[in-house]
Amino acid sequence: MRILVLNPNTTESVTALMIEASQSVAAAGTELVPMTAKRGLPYISTRAEAQIGGAIVLEMIAEAHRSVDAVVIAAYGDPGLLGARELFDIPVIGISEAAMLTACMLGQRFALVALSTAFNGWYRDCVEMHGLTGRCAGIYGLDQSFTSIADVQDENLEALVALAKGAIEAQDADSIIFAGAPLAGLARKVRERIPAPIIDPIAAAVKQAEALIALAPRKAPLGSFKRPAAKTSVGLPASLSAYIAQLEDRRGA
Amino acid sequence: MRILVLNPNTTESVTALMIEASQSVAAAGTELVPMTAKRGLPYISTRAEAQIGGAIVLEMIAEAHRSVDAVVIAAYGDPGLLGARELFDIPVIGISEAAMLTACMLGQRFALVALSTAFNGWYRDCVEMHGLTGRCAGIYGLDQSFTSIADVQDENLEALVALAKGAIEAQDADSIIFAGAPLAGLARKVRERIPAPIIDPIAAAVKQAEALIALAPRKAPLGSFKRPAAKTSVGLPASLSAYIAQLEDRRGA
Amino acid sequence: MRILVLNPNTTESVTALMIEASQSVAAAGTELVPMTAKRGLPYISTRAEAQIGGAIVLEMIAEAHRSVDAVVIAAYGDPGLLGARELFDIPVIGISEAAMLTACMLGQRFALVALSTAFNGWYRDCVEMHGLTGRCAGIYGLDQSFTSIADVQDENLEALVALAKGAIEAQDADSIIFAGAPLAGLARKVRERIPAPIIDPIAAAVKQAEALIALAPRKAPLGSFKRPAAKTSVGLPASLSAYIAQLEDRRGA
Amino acid sequence: MRILVLNPNTTESVTALMIEASQSVAAAGTELVPMTAKRGLPYISTRAEAQIGGAIVLEMIAEAHRSVDAVVIAAYGDPGLLGARELFDIPVIGISEAAMLTACMLGQRFALVALSTAFNGWYRDCVEMHGLTGRCAGIYGLDQSFTSIADVQDENLEALVALAKGAIEAQDADSIIFAGAPLAGLARKVRERIPAPIIDPIAAAVKQAEALIALAPRKAPLGSFKRPAAKTSVGLPASLSAYIAQLEDRRGA
Amino acid sequence: MRILVLNPNTTESVTALMIEASQSVAAAGTELVPMTAKRGLPYISTRAEAQIGGAIVLEMIAEAHRSVDAVVIAAYGDPGLLGARELFDIPVIGISEAAMLTACMLGQRFALVALSTAFNGWYRDCVEMHGLTGRCAGIYGLDQSFTSIADVQDENLEALVALAKGAIEAQDADSIIFAGAPLAGLARKVRERIPAPIIDPIAAAVKQAEALIALAPRKAPLGSFKRPAAKTSVGLPASLSAYIAQLEDRRGA
Amino acid sequence: MRILVLNPNTTESVTALMIEASQSVAAAGTELVPMTAKRGLPYISTRAEAQIGGAIVLEMIAEAHRSVDAVVIAAYGDPGLLGARELFDIPVIGISEAAMLTACMLGQRFALVALSTAFNGWYRDCVEMHGLTGRCAGIYGLDQSFTSIADVQDENLEALVALAKGAIEAQDADSIIFAGAPLAGLARKVRERIPAPIIDPIAAAVKQAEALIALAPRKAPLGSFKRPAAKTSVGLPASLSAYIAQLEDRRGA
Repeated sequence: MRILVLNPNTTESVTALMIEASQSVAAAGTELVPMTAKRGLPYISTRAEAQIGGAIVLEMIAEAHRSVDAVVIAAYGDPGLLGARELFDIPVIGISEAAMLTACMLGQRFALVALSTAFNGWYRDCVEMHGLTGRCAGIYGLDQSFTSIADVQDENLEALVALAKGAIEAQDADSIIFAGAPLAGLARKVRERIPAPIIDPIAAAVKQAEALIALAPRKAPLGSFKRPAAKTSVGLPASLSAYIAQLEDRRGA
Repeated sequence: MRILVLNPNTTESVTALMIEASQSVAAAGTELVPMTAKRGLPYISTRAEAQIGGAIVLEMIAEAHRSVDAVVIAAYGDPGLLGARELFDIPVIGISEAAMLTACMLGQRFALVALSTAFNGWYRDCVEMHGLTGRCAGIYGLDQSFTSIADVQDENLEALVALAKGAIEAQDADSIIFAGAPLAGLARKVRERIPAPIIDPIAAAVKQAEALIALAPRKAPLGSFKRPAAKTSVGLPASLSAYIAQLEDRRGA
Repeated sequence: MRILVLNPNTTESVTALMIEASQSVAAAGTELVPMTAKRGLPYISTRAEAQIGGAIVLEMIAEAHRSVDAVVIAAYGDPGLLGARELFDIPVIGISEAAMLTACMLGQRFALVALSTAFNGWYRDCVEMHGLTGRCAGIYGLDQSFTSIADVQDENLEALVALAKGAIEAQDADSIIFAGAPLAGLARKVRERIPAPIIDPIAAAVKQAEALIALAPRKAPLGSFKRPAAKTSVGLPASLSAYIAQLEDRRGA
Repeated sequence: MRILVLNPNTTESVTALMIEASQSVAAAGTELVPMTAKRGLPYISTRAEAQIGGAIVLEMIAEAHRSVDAVVIAAYGDPGLLGARELFDIPVIGISEAAMLTACMLGQRFALVALSTAFNGWYRDCVEMHGLTGRCAGIYGLDQSFTSIADVQDENLEALVALAKGAIEAQDADSIIFAGAPLAGLARKVRERIPAPIIDPIAAAVKQAEALIALAPRKAPLGSFKRPAAKTSVGLPASLSAYIAQLEDRRGA
Repeated sequence: MRILVLNPNTTESVTALMIEASQSVAAAGTELVPMTAKRGLPYISTRAEAQIGGAIVLEMIAEAHRSVDAVVIAAYGDPGLLGARELFDIPVIGISEAAMLTACMLGQRFALVALSTAFNGWYRDCVEMHGLTGRCAGIYGLDQSFTSIADVQDENLEALVALAKGAIEAQDADSIIFAGAPLAGLARKVRERIPAPIIDPIAAAVKQAEALIALAPRKAPLGSFKRPAAKTSVGLPASLSAYIAQLEDRRGA
Repeated sequence: MRILVLNPNTTESVTALMIEASQSVAAAGTELVPMTAKRGLPYISTRAEAQIGGAIVLEMIAEAHRSVDAVVIAAYGDPGLLGARELFDIPVIGISEAAMLTACMLGQRFALVALSTAFNGWYRDCVEMHGLTGRCAGIYGLDQSFTSIADVQDENLEALVALAKGAIEAQDADSIIFAGAPLAGLARKVRERIPAPIIDPIAAAVKQAEALIALAPRKAPLGSFKRPAAKTSVGLPASLSAYIAQLEDRRGA
C-alpha cells in the first residue's frame, strides 16, 4: 500500500524528517510517498497560512491521488482536511487528528506541547473542530518566536521536555502530543524522560492510514461528506480544476 | 465609510443581488464597494469549495484592503474569515457570523433555512466554529440539488416560506436566517408571511461592519489574533505574497 | 432614531457617564435618551439586586417604550433582558450581550475585566445565559470591595490596565470587555496601553441598537419570544400593569 | 421544622393544591407554611412574568424568613431562586430544581410535561440555568393556550398522560416531571398509567427542604453566594429594603 | 424505613465511621443498616478497583435488597450505581451523586476536596458521568499517597482545611464536598473554619434516600432504566445469579 | 504480534464470529488470540451486565496479558475498558471506542445501529464516556427484544439495512457503526447497499491494536492512568488478586 505523506509547506527537510520519523513504525508492505508543496509558505503557523496551505493541499491531492491508497496531511492543525475528505475517494487523515484519536486510546485527556505559544489559537481551533475539547488537558507552547525551523527540535529539546513534564504534573494529563511537523521524531528521543505516553503525530497518522486502507470504507454517496457534484471553475490550478470538473454526482448510484 | 462587499464566488449577479439587498439598510455615509472573485467557483456549496474560496478571500482582501474601512465576506459559511481577521488590520465580518450574532439579540435560538440540504454539513461546521451550536434550533434545507443559482430565490419562494414556518413550529425557533448568498433580499419579500423575525445575512453584516468601524477597535498586538510575523512565500498571488512579506512583528510596539 | 439608554440603577451620574461614552460613536441621526431608575439601588452588584433591577427595567420600558425605537439596558449583567425582549415590540439590547457579541467579531475568546471579584458569580451566570461560555477566556476582578461608585474608574485605572494585560498574557485572550457601567468610557482612555481590542459595552450596545432599528425585525407572533397573552395583575406599577393588561394575543395575526 | 411554601402568584387555590400534594410526603415534624403573593400575577407563564414574580419572591422571603427554617419557591421555572439563595441565610429551594435533581437519581434523562407549549422557552432557560440540559430528554407541552388555571389538571388529564407516554417512547426518557404548579398532585393520580417514575415538583421540593434543614449548611461568607454587603435603596417594598439595609459584610467573620 | 449503607470495601471501620457521620442527620424513623463487603479491596482508589467494587455492589444488593427500603452506595465515585439502579426496584443512591446534587442547591459551583491527587481521574470521570462538569469548580487532592486509611482524617485535617480554603478563594467555589468515605464526619468538625457550606457525602446520601423513599417512585417499566429481562448466567455469586434469573420482563405490565 | 480478542460473554460462537470478521483485515504478522469468558452472561445488554462483565474482563486480562501484545475488549459498550487501561501495561482497546474513533476519520458525525432499542441507554452512556456525544448523529435500534443471539444478524439483515439508511437520510449521518458483537461481519455483507461508509467495530479494533503495538507507547508513570499501587485483596479471582498484589508503585522510576 502507498501512503502519500503530503507536506503542504515548501520546506523539504521537514518532509524528510517526517518520513524518517514514521518509517520505523510503518508496516512491512507500506510505502511512504513524500510530497512537498511547490508553492506556499516555508511553514504554517497561523490561521491565515492554514487557509492558504489548505487550498494547496487540495491541489496536491488532485495531482497525486490516483497513484496512492491514502493521504496523510502532514502539517499540524490539519489544513484542508475536511475539504479533502469530502472531495476525494481515498482516505485522507490529518496528523493532528490521528495524534488526538490515538491519544484517546491512551487515557482520558491529552496535552499538546508545541514550539511556540504563537500556535495556540490555531491549535485550539483544531481541537475544537474535531470535537475533542473535552479531552484536551491544555495546549502548551514555548515562550518564543522563531524564524527558522531548522534544528528547532534539538535546540529546544530540554525546554520541550520540561514543558511536557509540567503539563502532566499541573493538569494530570494522561498523554503528550508533540504538536508541529518540525518535532517529528522527538517523541522517540525523549520517551524515557517524560512520565506519560508520548504521541508522534506523523507516526500515528501513518498507522491510521494503514488501518483505513485495510478497512476499505466506501466513499459516501450520501451524508455530509458525499462526493460533491461537478463544477466548472476559473483560474484554479489545472489538476484541481480538472478534478472538480469531472466529478459526477453518483449519489443515486 | 467604505465597506467592501467581497463575493468570493465568480457570479457577479449574486454580488449585485447582495448590494441591492443591503443598500436600503446602510447608513447615510456608507458606501458599499462590490468585489467579485475573478477566479474560483460560481458558488460555494461544500467544505472543499470553501477551503479554496477562503484562500481567494485572502488574495482579494490583500488587493483591496487599503481603500476600504471594513470587509464583509459575502458567502454563507464565512470562508476565510478567521484567517482574514488575523491577517488584516481592518474589521472583517462574515455574513453567517453577522446573521447569527444578530439573531442572538432577537431570541434564544435561531434556525437556518437554505436552498438545499447539500449545504447542511458545511453550515453545521460553521455554527460550531462560532461556538453557537447551543443557540441553533436546526438547519433546514430544501430536498433538492440545483446546478444554476439564477432565479433560485423566486423559484423556491413558496417552499422556503414553508420550510421556515415548519422550523418555527417544530423547534420553537425564535428567528429565521435565510442562509445563502443567492437568498439575499428574500427576507424583505416574505417578512409578513413568516411568524418570527427573519435575518438577511448580508444586511446584518453591513450593519455590523458599520458598528465595528464606529467602534474602531485596535488591531491586536497580542492574543491569538495578533498580527502575524512577516514571511517569504513562493507561488502565491502577488498581492497576498507582498502583503505577507511586509508584515512586521509589532507585538512589542 | 431614538434609543433609550435605560439605567436600572438610581445613580444619575453613571447614566451621564454612559451617555458621554457612547455619544461619540452614535450615528448622525441617533438621539440617545437617558433614563435613570427612580426606585431601586444605587448600583447592582449581585444576583438578588439584578432580580430586583430587572423588574424595574420592565416598569421603565412600559413607561417609555412608545417614544423610542429601541432600548439599551445599561447595566452589566443584562437585568431583565429576556423578559423585556419577550414583552415589548421594539428591540431591547443588553450592554453585556452587545459587548460579548461584538467581541465575537474581534477574535475567538474575550475576557471580562471588572471592578471587583464580587461580580464574578453574576457575570459568569450572564455569560452562560447567552450561551457564550465557550468563547469566554475568563472573568477578572479587582480584589477589593467598594461602597461608592464615584470615581472608581480613575482611582483604579492602573490596576484595571494591569488586570487586562494579565488576562491577555495568561489566557491568550483576543479582546477585553470592561464590564460594569461605572467603567463606561475607560476603553477609550487606555486604548493604546492594552495589547488587544477593548470593548466598551455601552458603545457596543448603542451600535447594536442602531443596527437592529435599521434591520427592523418584526415582533415574533410565534416562537418562544412571541408576544405574551394579556393578563390582569394586582399591585404592579401602573404603567407595567396597564401594558400587560392590554396585550392581545396576536399569534394568529 | 417549618418550611415556607411560597407561591409567587396570587392564586390561593394553587397554593392550597400544592400544600395538599406535598403534605402526605412530608416528615412527621414538618410544618408546611403556605404563603401566597399579595401582589403580582395569577400565574407566571413567561420570562417577563418570572422576572416580576422573582422580585416579589424576594419581598416575600424578606417578610417571612425569620419564622421558618427553609423556603420552597413554589412556581415552576424557579423565579428569583439564585437571588434569594444569595440574599438569605436559610436554604431556598426551587420546585423545578428539586424536581430535576430528584429525577437525576431515578435515571439519566428526564422529560418535562407541561400544560402548554407556551412555557417551553422559559422552561428551557430554566433547565439551562441549572446546567442540566445534557440530562433533559425534552420538554413537552399541550398544544393549547388557556386563560384560567382552575381545573386545568383534571380537564387535561388524559392528554397529559398521552404526552408523558409519548415522551418516554420517543425519547427513551427515564422519568417524567409534571412541570407547573397547577399540576401538583397529578403524579399521584396517574402513577400506574405512565411507564416510568413521575416526579411531583412540590413534593420533591419539600423533601429537599427537609434534607437541607437537617444538613444545616452554613451561609457562605465567601464564594459567589456569599452574603452581600448592606445597601441603601429607594422605593423598594419596606421589608426587602430593610433587610438589604441591615446586611453586614461578614465575609471576614 | 430501613436504609442499607453499603460499603463495597472490606474495611469495617470505615463503615462504622459513615454510620456515625450520618446518624445524627437521619430522621426519627430511619434505621441505618450497615453492610461491609466480605470480598474485595480495603478501599477503592482507581477506576479498576471501582470496576471490581461495582460488581461486588450488585452482589451485595442482590443479597440484601428485600429487607431494606433503599440503598446508599457508600464509596465516593459511585461504583456500580447505574447498574444497580437499573437492576433493582428500590431506590439506589451514590454518595458522590447525593453530595453533588445537594451542592447544586447551595450555589452554582462546588469543589471536591480529597485525600490524594491519586483519585482525581476517577472522580473527574464520576462528575462527568453525572453530567455535572459545568457545575464543578475543580477537584483538589493532597499531594501524597497513603497505604493505610486509618486515621487519615485527623492526620490530614489541617491540610484538608487549607485545600478547601484555597479552592474557594482561587475558584470562587460556592461549596465544598469532602470526597472519600474515610472523610465521613470531617465536615462537621471543621464547619466553622471553612468559608462556604461543606457537604458530607454520606449525610447527604442518607437524606436523599429518605426523600426517595417518601416519594415512592415506581420502578420504570420503560425508558433506559427499565427492569431488564431475566437471564441465565454462569459462575456469578449465587444471590446475584438467582436475582437475574428470576427477573421478569414486566415491560408491558 | 499477538492480539487478545477478549469476549467478556460466555457465547463462544460470537467470539468465533468476531475472529472471522476481523481476520481478513489483520496484517500479515498479526495473530488473533480468541478468549471467551468462562463465567458471566451469554451476552451483555444492560448497564448492570456491563458492570459485571467489566470485572470479568479484568480477571481475564490478568490471566492472559503476559502472552499477548494488546487486548481488544470485544463487547460493544467497552465494559471494563478504563479500569483495564489503568491496570495493565499493554494497550487495551474497546470495540466501540475503536469504531467511533475510526468513524471520526470518515466524516463529522456517525450513527449507531443496533439490534434492539434495549441497548440505547448503555450505548448512550458509552458515547458520553468517550466524550464523543457531539460527533454522534443518533443511536438507532430495532424495535424488538430477543432472547437468543444466534443468527440475529441474518434474520434482521433487511431491517438493519433499512435502519441504517434511515439514519443517514434523517440525520445526515456521515458513517454507520453496526453496534453489537453479534453484528460482526455484517458491514462487509451490506457494504454496497448502505450509502455511507460502515464500520465493523471488531475490525476497527484489531487495526487500532496493531497501530498501538507499532507505536509502543510507554505505560504512564504519572497522569490519571498511571500504574496503581499494589493492594491486598480478599475473595477476588486468583489471577486478578495476584496481579494487583504485585503492582509496584513505579511512579518515581
